[in-house]
Amino acid sequence: MKRYSIASIPGDGIGREVVPAAIEVLTATADKCGFALDFRHFDWSCQTYLETGKMMPDDGLDQLRDHEAVFLGAVGYPGVPDHISLWGLLLPIRREFEQYVNLRPVRLLPGIASPLRDKAPGDIDFWVVRENSEGEYSQVGGRTGTGEDEIVVQQAIFTRRGTDRILRYAFDFARRLGRKHVTSATKSNGLYHSMPFWDERFAAIGAEYPDVAADQYHVDILAARFVMSPERFDVVVGSNLFGDILSDLGPGITGTIAVAPSANLNPERRFPSMFEPVHGSAPDIAGQGIANPIGQIWSGAMMLEHLGETEAAALVMRALETALTAPDIAKTPDLGGKGTTVEFADAVRSTLLGL
Amino acid sequence: MKRYSIASIPGDGIGREVVPAAIEVLTATADKCGFALDFRHFDWSCQTYLETGKMMPDDGLDQLRDHEAVFLGAVGYPGVPDHISLWGLLLPIRREFEQYVNLRPVRLLPGIASPLRDKAPGDIDFWVVRENSEGEYSQVGGRTGTGEDEIVVQQAIFTRRGTDRILRYAFDFARRLGRKHVTSATKSNGLYHSMPFWDERFAAIGAEYPDVAADQYHVDILAARFVMSPERFDVVVGSNLFGDILSDLGPGITGTIAVAPSANLNPERRFPSMFEPVHGSAPDIAGQGIANPIGQIWSGAMMLEHLGETEAAALVMRALETALTAPDIAKTPDLGGKGTTVEFADAVRSTLLGL
Ligand SMILES: CC(C)[C@H](C(=O)O)[C@@H](O)C(=O)O
Ligand SMILES: CC(C)[C@H](C(=O)O)[C@@H](O)C(=O)O
Repeated sequence: MKRYSIASIPGDGIGREVVPAAIEVLTATADKCGFALDFRHFDWSCQTYLETGKMMPDDGLDQLRDHEAVFLGAVGYPGVPDHISLWGLLLPIRREFEQYVNLRPVRLLPGIASPLRDKAPGDIDFWVVRENSEGEYSQVGGRTGTGEDEIVVQQAIFTRRGTDRILRYAFDFARRLGRKHVTSATKSNGLYHSMPFWDERFAAIGAEYPDVAADQYHVDILAARFVMSPERFDVVVGSNLFGDILSDLGPGITGTIAVAPSANLNPERRFPSMFEPVHGSAPDIAGQGIANPIGQIWSGAMMLEHLGETEAAALVMRALETALTAPDIAKTPDLGGKGTTVEFADAVRSTLLGL
Repeated sequence: MKRYSIASIPGDGIGREVVPAAIEVLTATADKCGFALDFRHFDWSCQTYLETGKMMPDDGLDQLRDHEAVFLGAVGYPGVPDHISLWGLLLPIRREFEQYVNLRPVRLLPGIASPLRDKAPGDIDFWVVRENSEGEYSQVGGRTGTGEDEIVVQQAIFTRRGTDRILRYAFDFARRLGRKHVTSATKSNGLYHSMPFWDERFAAIGAEYPDVAADQYHVDILAARFVMSPERFDVVVGSNLFGDILSDLGPGITGTIAVAPSANLNPERRFPSMFEPVHGSAPDIAGQGIANPIGQIWSGAMMLEHLGETEAAALVMRALETALTAPDIAKTPDLGGKGTTVEFADAVRSTLLGL
């Protein structure tokens, strides 16, 4: 029997609730499909930080390195400044493991209402390909001057290598999808150095893919178009920051960010890739057992896909969609239901076993 | 009779159509209210650049300096790279005239359908206060290395003075509005230096306004919340880039960015303030006479307000809203009608004269 070793990091807040729920579903899927997922649990979180002064042990990355994938919940909690929790755990994993692609579907699921008028599943169905390793997210910069005269510099660093590889990934992905259309998020009218460079590289890489249509919008109007005409998009590629914003806005137009998954990919497979929902640790509802596990389960499906278990991945998605449209399904409160995290995950699991 | 000297710069594309249309309405308003607007026209545009290599003459800013306001259409046109056209005209005016506040209403007008389900005028009604002079929009940075090894650095520069003054403006504005609630757009979990600083200053300035409620969201989830729950916002304050994105997304949820206005304010009135619609030069429809003039007319209303002609400003808004809900009004094609720019502006003007 094929076995996969997976590092699971529930992290903070609702991560501790949705990760075990999703693991139930994934384990049942593996059983049914005849392979095994060996989860090893790493209890790294803001709690760890408060106790040890570190988000993960010094050799944390080494402990993860030999797994085939990392299954992450959410990181960040009140009491620990975000830039500490994130730069101490999530962002180093993305960077050290060269997970330079953050792939995020924006898809309206059946059984979930879009806040947009007159949209049905199929109307909103595209992908955000986000640069995930450099750009605006940088620790380069600092403060100088004091009091009234203080000045803060934040540097964004774009490398040609880093830019080209994400753009190529986007074009390749559009080809693989068979929907040959890539839209670039830019802001070359305001960001004087970085975005004109991004546009140049987009034009250069696009020229290598004459069969793929390419267009670009400034990120401000692009955000507006996500709301006004989401049908027009197939693959949207953006820098680390623009991709971040657009891939939360995308799920926003599909009803809730609670359902959105993401894959942090090292396409060369030199290092493990990481799968995590788009939502955060949601301190406001943590501990109540009512968090929506869909984003985590869907992230699990993306993980199965990445591991090569394509049929199993499709099965999870079919089970999710079937469960969501079943009458009397125990949806979580964010979707207007009265179900708990565990009840909903159980429903997905039994649906799956019956498929 | 009171006279105001206004510099008008139609600029590029549809700017050349909506500026004259709006001036008709504003002039009629002034006549009716008993003051005069003396418009002086400056034909600076991408065309000027192609002919002279400059977007405006070397002493351009000095030519504007003695006016009470600048009334701008749109800048930018295919054939001239955006970062040249904008950094050669729009952005120097904002900076040199210390127009450090960019104030943008997000308001659903009667007669215009929101793409969001179940929203009526009143449901979407808030303001974006955007920092307009520093931050991410910076010419500091550059390129180094060649070919595969090229690296591009883009610096964002936040000063304490610049940050504090925009935050204070937002809190003061919320007080003046009587809706005492300010929301800050941050991204301190990813942008390591600039946004933790922004958060610190937001907390410090907020403490000076104990009567104003303050909250903050990371810009990614904030964008999603604009779509999912726009009712919750009153005043949203953001950096130059975040404010830019949010103030296009805002108009997106109110149906079209064609109607959105903006005020680039120098609150101390040492220099002229500038009023311009949020939309761009729209090369795709330029020259057809069908551009929607509402954003330009509404910007004109904000200009009258700034000049102290509060009643005239209210009159323009009342005329706009009345015209928009009149039967058989000649709406422009973007609003589903068959009217031209001139026909719609004429309708607003005659409505206004009849009020
Ligand atoms: C044209 C561009 C530089 C400008 C900006 O980003 O400030 C525009 O998008 C705006 O919002 O006024
Ligand atoms: C938590 C935060 C650092 C992270 C990001 O901005 O990358 C999150 O918003 C995401 O999108 O995965």
